[in-house]
Amino acid sequence: MIAKKMKPYLENNSAIRAMFEEGKRLASIYGADHVYDFSLGNPNVPAPAGIREAIISILEEEDPVFVHGYMSNAGFPHVRKAIADNLNERFGTSFTDQNLIMTVGAGSGLNVCLKTLLDPGDEVVVFAPYFLEYGSYIRNYDGVLVQVDPDTETFQLNLEDFEKKLSPKTKAVIINNPHNPTGVVFSEETIRRLASILESRQQEYGHAIYLISDEPYRELAFDGAFVPFVTKYYDNTMVVYSYSKSLSLPGERIGYVVIPDEVEDSEQTIAAATIANRISGCVNAPSLIQLAVAKCVDAQVDLGFYDRNRKTLYDGLTSLGFTCVKPEGAFYLWMKSPEKDEKKFVEAAKKYNILVVPGSSFACPGYVRLAYCVAYETIVNSLPEFEKLAKEYF
Amino acid sequence: MIAKKMKPYLENNSAIRAMFEEGKRLASIYGADHVYDFSLGNPNVPAPAGIREAIISILEEEDPVFVHGYMSNAGFPHVRKAIADNLNERFGTSFTDQNLIMTVGAGSGLNVCLKTLLDPGDEVVVFAPYFLEYGSYIRNYDGVLVQVDPDTETFQLNLEDFEKKLSPKTKAVIINNPHNPTGVVFSEETIRRLASILESRQQEYGHAIYLISDEPYRELAFDGAFVPFVTKYYDNTMVVYSYSKSLSLPGERIGYVVIPDEVEDSEQTIAAATIANRISGCVNAPSLIQLAVAKCVDAQVDLGFYDRNRKTLYDGLTSLGFTCVKPEGAFYLWMKSPEKDEKKFVEAAKKYNILVVPGSSFACPGYVRLAYCVAYETIVNSLPEFEKLAKEYF
Repeated sequence: MIAKKMKPYLENNSAIRAMFEEGKRLASIYGADHVYDFSLGNPNVPAPAGIREAIISILEEEDPVFVHGYMSNAGFPHVRKAIADNLNERFGTSFTDQNLIMTVGAGSGLNVCLKTLLDPGDEVVVFAPYFLEYGSYIRNYDGVLVQVDPDTETFQLNLEDFEKKLSPKTKAVIINNPHNPTGVVFSEETIRRLASILESRQQEYGHAIYLISDEPYRELAFDGAFVPFVTKYYDNTMVVYSYSKSLSLPGERIGYVVIPDEVEDSEQTIAAATIANRISGCVNAPSLIQLAVAKCVDAQVDLGFYDRNRKTLYDGLTSLGFTCVKPEGAFYLWMKSPEKDEKKFVEAAKKYNILVVPGSSFACPGYVRLAYCVAYETIVNSLPEFEKLAKEYF
Repeated sequence: MIAKKMKPYLENNSAIRAMFEEGKRLASIYGADHVYDFSLGNPNVPAPAGIREAIISILEEEDPVFVHGYMSNAGFPHVRKAIADNLNERFGTSFTDQNLIMTVGAGSGLNVCLKTLLDPGDEVVVFAPYFLEYGSYIRNYDGVLVQVDPDTETFQLNLEDFEKKLSPKTKAVIINNPHNPTGVVFSEETIRRLASILESRQQEYGHAIYLISDEPYRELAFDGAFVPFVTKYYDNTMVVYSYSKSLSLPGERIGYVVIPDEVEDSEQTIAAATIANRISGCVNAPSLIQLAVAKCVDAQVDLGFYDRNRKTLYDGLTSLGFTCVKPEGAFYLWMKSPEKDEKKFVEAAKKYNILVVPGSSFACPGYVRLAYCVAYETIVNSLPEFEKLAKEYF
């Protein structure tokens, strides 16, 4: 007698997770070295040593009542200040601790934003392909997800279709940059055009449209790709961040939301978001790891590791004849399925112990996602298997 | 332009938190030594040393990719097994790892249960006095809170009124044992009678009624008080636990939900709760602290500290003429206000730099709550001030 709302979730339990289980099953049969599991965005690069050092020094030097205790629901003020200062230095913004709310990762940060903003029936526009969990988050508040078709030429934002999908009911728009699942980085030109469309629609509809920028991959950009900091282009922006990828801490659930002063009724919005963080049951982001990331604002995982994987995989697959979007950010490679029904291609790949995620798991059939946050050897050893797979098609 | 649902929260932002700010303000004027702040349940006893040792050994011995990485949304299997084994040993239950879901504290655990169970309009019965946040949690899923009147003789559960408040719409009942704010421990007799009423109503209505037992204070019981483990008395029980109090880790947000096999459709319910944990945005409970608590299943904060506070405060206040419920558990003392409007009494106490929480913050006017999880000196030094306060009334 579970809630009716929960039943569809049981029926469609996350395909990505199911694949993760499949990876473990295959590994138990063939040995982990002979399974090429590109299905899950679980970073393979260890957290920077600074994180361990920071945690140990906090435990050794600080009062445990402080370290593990309650703080303001928005997080420790000095932690928020350290992060705000770092953002200001890097992006020329002028945030204070008051503009930041520490959250239980980006998943919780997105929920904080949506709970703060959505009345039932409000529309939230997302761009395909997208992380399907956005749909769960929007449904949590009885919002309505409106999907923009992909631009399959560039996989930049399809702003032509976006203009058609906006309506007076649009309350928020979610973007994700650098992008999961395509590895694309949305250009400054794209963000400027997006902002300009939103400005004019705000005028037309007479109410705010909030741009929620989900940025867990912000620091994972290659070849000097420029990742625009969105608050500088559009006032009603909320930035959602996570340390899951940049510091390889996905299990720790630590991130933040930035609500700049430029946001409409910012003081009320920040207060409501802080309450949303509390009443969602999270209360506050975990304390020890808050203190640790504040000591590591300049730390970063080894980008060179991902970059090598990226190049080796992209070069390897394209030379075998596969059509891939060249990844500029995050740690995903987006590949066109050589047959129309990419689920069949996913099954074909499994014969070679290659696990990839079908594009329909991101509302974009005909493509597959490869998460290359794996050991380099996995990439190198997978290529002969991909070669066998390619021979079935080309 | 925040959500309409969020507006009432802005107007009634937590009175307890406001008091916490007041405490800091008074401390800045009079010095912390001269402010007697009994307002917040933030433990003053440090976490057991075992926690620090466990965290450091995990960081030194384990692979950081494992320590900080994703795991099953329900938590690390070995962590759940360690806790299940410990519960089985202590309570004669027979849980496996599959019956446990690690959560972001009890707040999140309660939300996981309610999200799993509630359809809009479903009723959830709570017993006054109660933690008002239950109301926020129930509203998160458009449930309807139904309040049982307090039994102001004993502050055990008022089962006469409870029987009147049950209806065919009742989906769940929340209890909290040992009890915030009264410090009462519900007796085995009370739990047996509660279970028997629920059994007969399930029969009558032809559907399950879930008992959600919120137990963050389970280990905080004094004078050998027996705290019944509720799954043994009623099949459709979910236990929500947190290490916030037992290990003084409130800021870390670590706890769990137990869903026994005896719960109706337990497999489906466990699966739905695991999904609820994920889609709420939490994804999973924080990883490092999961690993740490599993190494400390037998650890406990210094109960003697709270016990001394409890006795000193209770004896001191009753000898001054105040009427108090003798606390048997948790770290709260529940006192009858000497004047009908306890908010006036709270204001009168502030003149002596004494901060207590009005009972109306727990839906039970005419009483006040004192959280005695403070330094012993605070208690000792407050008593002369309470004496001055008492002279205004007796």
